[in-house]
Parts: sequence; structure tokens; C-alpha cells
Amino acid sequence: MKEFDEYLSMVNEAIANLRLPSEPSGLYDPIRYTLDCGGKRLRPVLTLAACEAMGKEPMAAIHQAVAIEIFHNFTLLHDDVMDNADVRRGRPTVHKKWNEETAILSGDAMLTTSSMLLGIKAGERLSQAMELFNGTAMNIYEGQQYDMDFEHRLDVKVEEYMEMIRLKTSVLLGCACGMGALMADAPFETQVQFFNYGVNLGLAFQLQDDYLDTYGDPATFGKAIGGDILNDKKTWLLIMALQEDTSGTIKGLIGDNSRPEEKIGTVREIYNKLALPDRIHELIRAYIDTAISCLDHIELMPEARAFFIDLALKSATRNK
Amino acid sequence: MKEFDEYLSMVNEAIANLRLPSEPSGLYDPIRYTLDCGGKRLRPVLTLAACEAMGKEPMAAIHQAVAIEIFHNFTLLHDDVMDNADVRRGRPTVHKKWNEETAILSGDAMLTTSSMLLGIKAGERLSQAMELFNGTAMNIYEGQQYDMDFEHRLDVKVEEYMEMIRLKTSVLLGCACGMGALMADAPFETQVQFFNYGVNLGLAFQLQDDYLDTYGDPATFGKAIGGDILNDKKTWLLIMALQEDTSGTIKGLIGDNSRPEEKIGTVREIYNKLALPDRIHELIRAYIDTAISCLDHIELMPEARAFFIDLALKSATRNK
Repeated sequence: MKEFDEYLSMVNEAIANLRLPSEPSGLYDPIRYTLDCGGKRLRPVLTLAACEAMGKEPMAAIHQAVAIEIFHNFTLLHDDVMDNADVRRGRPTVHKKWNEETAILSGDAMLTTSSMLLGIKAGERLSQAMELFNGTAMNIYEGQQYDMDFEHRLDVKVEEYMEMIRLKTSVLLGCACGMGALMADAPFETQVQFFNYGVNLGLAFQLQDDYLDTYGDPATFGKAIGGDILNDKKTWLLIMALQEDTSGTIKGLIGDNSRPEEKIGTVREIYNKLALPDRIHELIRAYIDTAISCLDHIELMPEARAFFIDLALKSATRNK
Repeated sequence: MKEFDEYLSMVNEAIANLRLPSEPSGLYDPIRYTLDCGGKRLRPVLTLAACEAMGKEPMAAIHQAVAIEIFHNFTLLHDDVMDNADVRRGRPTVHKKWNEETAILSGDAMLTTSSMLLGIKAGERLSQAMELFNGTAMNIYEGQQYDMDFEHRLDVKVEEYMEMIRLKTSVLLGCACGMGALMADAPFETQVQFFNYGVNLGLAFQLQDDYLDTYGDPATFGKAIGGDILNDKKTWLLIMALQEDTSGTIKGLIGDNSRPEEKIGTVREIYNKLALPDRIHELIRAYIDTAISCLDHIELMPEARAFFIDLALKSATRNK
């Protein structure tokens, strides 16, 4: 097994060597811009690591790893159009820097590019790889749809929310892990355990994201704090507060952004009173424990096991 | 070989039996709406016919045929957002009936659905089918990008225009034909000839579309005549006129929609004076001849040959 950063270098090198056509530049420049964005590259690293953990060279899964990363960036690109977001990772979003048509079309081309990469050197695993990849993609669209549906609802249940983030965010981490195992010809049962590890990691990851958006340090988190609160975003925190805040204060603040700083402060106070920061961390820890327990069902060398445990623990305590 | 309408029934039945999930309805209802639109279904019929012409049951290619039809409808859906079109086949477009986010996300889901269908019962042809399909998709995005680029240019050359419609429209007909041959395990050379037949058919088809938009009978064509002229769309007709109209009248009318009916009349008169209606039909006929000559390189039963010749001739003379 290698360090996270070594897998990361492999991914970044493969992305730098993609050699997209130069023309029409209106189609390909925004793709280059999007892929040049940095980002954690957590998903493709998981693919390479899972592949190596199952006894194959990590580079055996490099095309599938990059396919998943490009797919992930495609979803961000189209989500930014749908959410009308101006900034992504500190830079203007594609539809702001270019325009909406460009963002739609370049996103489509990224989705097809990811499908092309998926097939490279997949051999007899191609059919299974496509099923895993396409099934995951459909889940992600469903998750995004539920997320948009929740905007218009005040009665979202916490189980609905967990199912939404499972679809929208977590299955792609599961897919990334399962894909690595598949490319290493691991038994199907092992692929499933890797998939489940990734899904639980993803749930923990998203809940930590929710936490950081309200409680993070803006300097390390890299964006303004309280965005979810101002957008009345139905996060785990808000859903729990809507359910438990008998004073009705939270409900009264929905849609009211007349005093933004005060709103963030008030909502945060209610969260604190309900002990939500502690409770969300308990929940995150439970998902991390579940993720780690999936590893028990996989025959892993100690250093591989340590890699995935370490990654899970770091995800639960990350501050950016 | 069967009649066009028999293949059409197979396609329509397969689409009706797709069984998309019911929830989230915000994602899947627009897909059902889009696929329920009618449309010529020319592409999937070509796939089934090419498969049968190469000696296999047409239903051996049904999933791939439907994949191509869903892909085609996905491109229309996203194009309508990019072009801000209100009406498609006499009904409100998805982004008008729902909203833009829905149109983007449902389109994405259609693209992935088409990729899923492509893999069903493809067996050992899967890798080749994906290459043909994804390569075609990339061409189509490139064509759409060029089409959008042309909006801002007055100096588009006719060769650039032909390359644009080859990419945006024609290769998908080529892909549809080639896919049918592939699914029947026809030799690669035969697949290429079928592909080329489809591409030339597609060029003729698009030029006839350009002609009908200006000279069609609104009652049979199904939409208002002169839309391309009012949008200053760089069609073959406008590009030739911009090049040959030494009076400068055409150039002066670009961007000027103060008197729409008069503009349509004036532009049409210039087209007539330059004999463009006759000349575009010569060109269409030349592409049809090229399409038919591709069939000479394929070992075809007489009735299969007749089917594809008939289809080509009808495309060149269609009035809707």
C-alpha cells in the first residue's frame, strides 16, 4: 500500500495526461478548467487503494478511477447550474465564467468522457463496471432530485434526509471503492463490502460537511460559514432542530434573511441548546464504525486495513 | 425485411415497456413525457433494419436501438434549454412545462439510461458498441458547440457548415445503422459502410430540414415557416446567400426583426434569385446518391437493399 498522496499523484498525472481535443475550445476549455480545479480527489484515490488492497497494481484501475473523478466533477458542474452557485473551490463556476449553455454542454461531454474512460482496459469486467457505474449515476440523479424537492418542504424527516445523502453523495464513494475491488478481480462479496465501506464513509463525510458549514473555521474550511443556514438548507442539523425546537423560533426564521448574521447566531444557539453538535458527531462516529466493520469482512493485509481505517477516522475529524 | 412501420412498432413497444421508476417523480416524469412525444423514430428503426439486413432477428438490437433513441431525445431536451425553445413537437418543452433544473437533471438521467440500455445483451460486442456510441456522442456535442459558435459569426463557410451538421446530426444516423450491423456481427468493413450510409442520409436529411423551414407547407411541416430566417440561423441557404448576394441586402437584414413577415419574404426572394432551392436539392440528391452507393459495398438481399434505398429517397423528398 502507498500513502494517500502517492495515489493522489497518480490520479493527478493521469488527469493532466488526458489530452482532450483543443477544438471546439468552447466545449473543451471548460472541461479543462473544471478538472484543473484541485479538489480532494478522494474518490479516485479510493479506487486505486482498493485495487491495490486486493493485490493488483493500483494503475490497473487508473482509467476507472479517473472516470469516477470526471463523473463527480460533471455532477458538481451541473449542480452549480441548478443551484445557481457563483463560486466553486474559490473560483467562478463554469456558468458564471462562460455561460449556462456552456456549462450544460461541457457537463454532458464530461459524462460521456467518463463513460469512455470506464471502458479502457476493463476487459471482461466491462459489463459489471458499467452496471456499477451507471446504477450509481442514476442514484445520484435521484438524490439531487430529492435534495431539490426538499427545498420546498418543511416536513422532511431525518430518514428521508439520510436516504437523500446516501443517494446524492455516498454511493459514489461506495462505487469508487467497489470499482477498485472489481478491477482487481476481487470476489463479488468483497466488492460489496468495499462498496458498503464507501457508502458509510460517505454518509459520515456528508454529515461532517453539514457540521462544518455551520461550525467550521472559515479560514481552514475555505468558504463562509452559515451558508446552509441562510439558504434554509435541509441539513441534518436543521431537520432535527425543526423537529425538536418547540419554541417555533427556527420555523419562524425560514425564508427570513433580513438580518443574516443574527439569523446564523440564533440558529446556531438553538442547535447548541439541543446539543446537536455533539449528537451529529455521535452519528458520524457510528457511520465510521460501520464503515470500519465492513473491512472485517474483507481479507486485508494489515497495512491495507490501516489505510482504510485511517482514512475513515480522518474523514470524521476533518476540518476542511 | 419488414416495413418501416413494423420496426417502428417494435421500437414503440420497447419504449412503452421501459418501466422507469415512479419516484422521484420530478426526475422520471419528464423522461416519460419526453419519450412519449412521438417523433419519427428514424434512428432506432435504422438500427433494427440494419440488424435484420445482416441476417439477425431485428429484436437482437432492440436495446441498442432504444438506447440511441433515448440518447437522441436527451440531446433535444438539453438543446431546447440551450436554445431557450418553448415548443417541441407541438408541446411545451420540458424546461417550460417544469423548469430548467428539471430539464438538465432529467436529460442527464436519460444519457445514463441510454448507456445502461446499450449494455443489455450486447455480449462481447459491448466494448465496440460503447466506443461507437460514446465517440458519436462526443461528435454531437462538438457539433452543437460549433452550431452555437456560428451564431456569433457572419463568415461561416459552407464547408464549416457541412462539418457542423455532420457532427451534430448525421453521425447519429450513421451510429444507428452501424450499431445494427454490429449487433448482427457483421464484418467491421460492413459496419463502416452502414455507418457511411447513415451519415450521408443524415446530411441529406438536415439539408431537407433547412429547405423545409423556409419553403415547407406549415400545415404538413408542423411548425411555422421562416423560423430559421428570423433567428438568422446559419443554414446552408443563408450561408450561400451571404456569400453570393452582392447587393448586401441579406447582411443588412441580420439582427433586424422589426418587420418579420417582410424579412421572410425578402430573404426568400433572394434565395430564389440565387436559385438556392434548386441547388440545395441537387446537393441533397448528391448525398442520397452517395448514401445509396455505400450499399453497393454491402452484401444485401434485394429486399434489404430496396428498404434502405427507399428510405433514402423518401428522406430527400419528405415534406414533414
